[in-house]
Amino acid sequence: MSDIVRLAQQARAASRALAAAPARARGGALLAVARALEAQAPALLAANAHDMAEAGALDTPLRKRLCFDAAKLAEACAGLRALAALPDPIGTTQRATELAPGLRLYRVACPIGVVGVIFESRPDALVQIAALCLKSGNAALLKGGREALHTNRALFGALYQATLDAGMPSGWAALLETRQDVTEMLALDACIDLIIPRGGNAFVRHIMQNSRIPVLGHADGLCALYVDAAADVDMAVALAVDGKAQYPAVCNATETLLVHREIAPRFLPPLAAAMAQAGVVLRGDARARAIIPCQPAADADFDTEFLDLILAVGVVDTLAEAVAHINAHGSHHTDAIVTRDTEAARAFLAGVDSAGVYHNCSTRFADGYRYGLGAEVGVATGKLHARGPMGLEGLTTYKYKLLGHGQTVGAFASGQAAFAHLSMEEDCPL
Amino acid sequence: MSDIVRLAQQARAASRALAAAPARARGGALLAVARALEAQAPALLAANAHDMAEAGALDTPLRKRLCFDAAKLAEACAGLRALAALPDPIGTTQRATELAPGLRLYRVACPIGVVGVIFESRPDALVQIAALCLKSGNAALLKGGREALHTNRALFGALYQATLDAGMPSGWAALLETRQDVTEMLALDACIDLIIPRGGNAFVRHIMQNSRIPVLGHADGLCALYVDAAADVDMAVALAVDGKAQYPAVCNATETLLVHREIAPRFLPPLAAAMAQAGVVLRGDARARAIIPCQPAADADFDTEFLDLILAVGVVDTLAEAVAHINAHGSHHTDAIVTRDTEAARAFLAGVDSAGVYHNCSTRFADGYRYGLGAEVGVATGKLHARGPMGLEGLTTYKYKLLGHGQTVGAFASGQAAFAHLSMEEDCPL
Repeated sequence: MSDIVRLAQQARAASRALAAAPARARGGALLAVARALEAQAPALLAANAHDMAEAGALDTPLRKRLCFDAAKLAEACAGLRALAALPDPIGTTQRATELAPGLRLYRVACPIGVVGVIFESRPDALVQIAALCLKSGNAALLKGGREALHTNRALFGALYQATLDAGMPSGWAALLETRQDVTEMLALDACIDLIIPRGGNAFVRHIMQNSRIPVLGHADGLCALYVDAAADVDMAVALAVDGKAQYPAVCNATETLLVHREIAPRFLPPLAAAMAQAGVVLRGDARARAIIPCQPAADADFDTEFLDLILAVGVVDTLAEAVAHINAHGSHHTDAIVTRDTEAARAFLAGVDSAGVYHNCSTRFADGYRYGLGAEVGVATGKLHARGPMGLEGLTTYKYKLLGHGQTVGAFASGQAAFAHLSMEEDCPL
Repeated sequence: MSDIVRLAQQARAASRALAAAPARARGGALLAVARALEAQAPALLAANAHDMAEAGALDTPLRKRLCFDAAKLAEACAGLRALAALPDPIGTTQRATELAPGLRLYRVACPIGVVGVIFESRPDALVQIAALCLKSGNAALLKGGREALHTNRALFGALYQATLDAGMPSGWAALLETRQDVTEMLALDACIDLIIPRGGNAFVRHIMQNSRIPVLGHADGLCALYVDAAADVDMAVALAVDGKAQYPAVCNATETLLVHREIAPRFLPPLAAAMAQAGVVLRGDARARAIIPCQPAADADFDTEFLDLILAVGVVDTLAEAVAHINAHGSHHTDAIVTRDTEAARAFLAGVDSAGVYHNCSTRFADGYRYGLGAEVGVATGKLHARGPMGLEGLTTYKYKLLGHGQTVGAFASGQAAFAHLSMEEDCPL
């Protein structure tokens, strides 16, 4: 038996114990992790210095994400304590119905079971994801980026040992280290309930196409901003610059800008000036280039997640054309309209089939922290189970508990008993 | 372009219009369908007579399901009117948060989009499923069993025309007729958001393994009844007989019975007598056969969905052994414990990882109508999105609507603005 099969089987067994662990025990374990990370700070920072030294040749955004210094450690520990203080997501009665006298149905939140998460080279993500899984009662198989290998080993070792010392079941979490480990994990649909891949587009698609385990994740972040005929021009320029340039390497950055033909002559010149100042290259369609000088956009530019200081710009005749374009070319992540016209906003928000539909604000707000979900384990662009930033709630499911006194279906079929279906305000007693 | 591709593209386009159709229009269309079915009763019953005549050689349960007579028609129309009267599942604000002054986030229920449903030879299912999809604002591709071909054509024709006359968008529903149609549909992940297969185990697995479209359905219904040491023997016998014999051909029938060794000598003899009377054959493990005479159970019998008057019977040493057996050999559908011991019930309900976990009642209660969900479109045994009987709520998802006044992320990053995350009691105004 391979190591990964063994780890997955241990995680499955541990998930049963974890699902039954009381909220106080899981919360206590999160606090113990914070204390352990603080106590082992010198070793953790040294491990990160090792990774940072090896990463010398990498570009700056990657180094920035890879860094795990005293400030990041303090932030991670504050995050653990904030998470421990949140209401427990497990065991909540979501709905209660008396089906018939003495026959009561409760829908109760429970953990999903075993979750596999594959994430980028960001050591703070390891702490955050493991903590979200523990808080939601899920066993976790974690695979971080290889650039963070030493930091992840040190962080995981401290975290895992602290949770065992706090009484969490052995094997509830494990650290995977290689791509081969991930490939093996994808075949273990008997032991793993959900895979959450984060990071590069091609990699996420690869995961989705190579596993029978359900996958929640985002394969693309191709977000659009539509500047309506009734837009405030200054606001539209500011939102376009923020969406594109504030942090271009992320999935909620704006990649496509569509503008209504009536406002294009007033909007595009100040847009071009502001984007030039922000270092952004515009690629315009023919109608945009008739108004401002810029690079020509190929058709493919409207299907491209640039993740860079490049913006595709197109002119449309109607709001309906903008909505149709976004539904056809976008990635159903987050799309925004700028307009003073309430009916136009309503039509856009109803018509665009995306996880986030925004009125008069930047696409960059699509994020679990900004949404107030606490941390996020990923952003889902599919439509099932969870949509958009996934926090604790996305890591839970429910079970129906039916409590009776010997009721048979035969009695209902014969007419001796009858369904009443009375809604109750009551927590499940079991 | 094949007919199916064209139908799926039309459904995708119609789904955008349907999602924007007001609740009153969708409800009115349901009432119009009821009137149309009543007006066309003679033609509908004649089409069913045609199918019934061709089905002459089929066995009785199938004929019973295939039958669509005046009583079934009246029931279908009553169901349509009841569904029309239910609260609309679309547009509800599930959560509202003020992220910062003037920046408000709303999570709002919306349709999934385009749903493909494959169902058995039960004409009333066509009406029920089409109605659930319409009520929840989803476009629907429907494929019924081939034995019901003429009835389905007649029903679908009447239903679809009535919805068009009531203003629903052209192409919102389509009827598929062949297995080849289904095979083509499974490849159309750009147009279809969800597949719901109902019916035989092997067929459902085939669907799950041959599509990249998300699939919600149940591949198995291997339900267990555990008779605890502290069970009431009479109740346990009655629940076992009801679970096994009341309707053995369905997914919520009891297939495995586990009994604690302490109560086995008192429970098994009356169980054997009652089951003999109900025509049920018992297959026991060695410890059961030491108490009652019965057929020997092979290991495979504890992994078999008999769908027949056969029950696998095993003796266990502990509740934990029963829970471990059910998690390993069951199908995570519905499992029950009979006991007077509250702590035993609590441990079983927490430990068994199934969509339904029952105390002192029959596994046969697992059903959308009995749960009070109105009708059901299927029963899900996976853990994501929907679990157990799936009604209207299972056919919805949500989108996040964020309404601002020009807010940029840059202002929050620079400290000019700060997140407040105030929970609000407010419906989304757009």
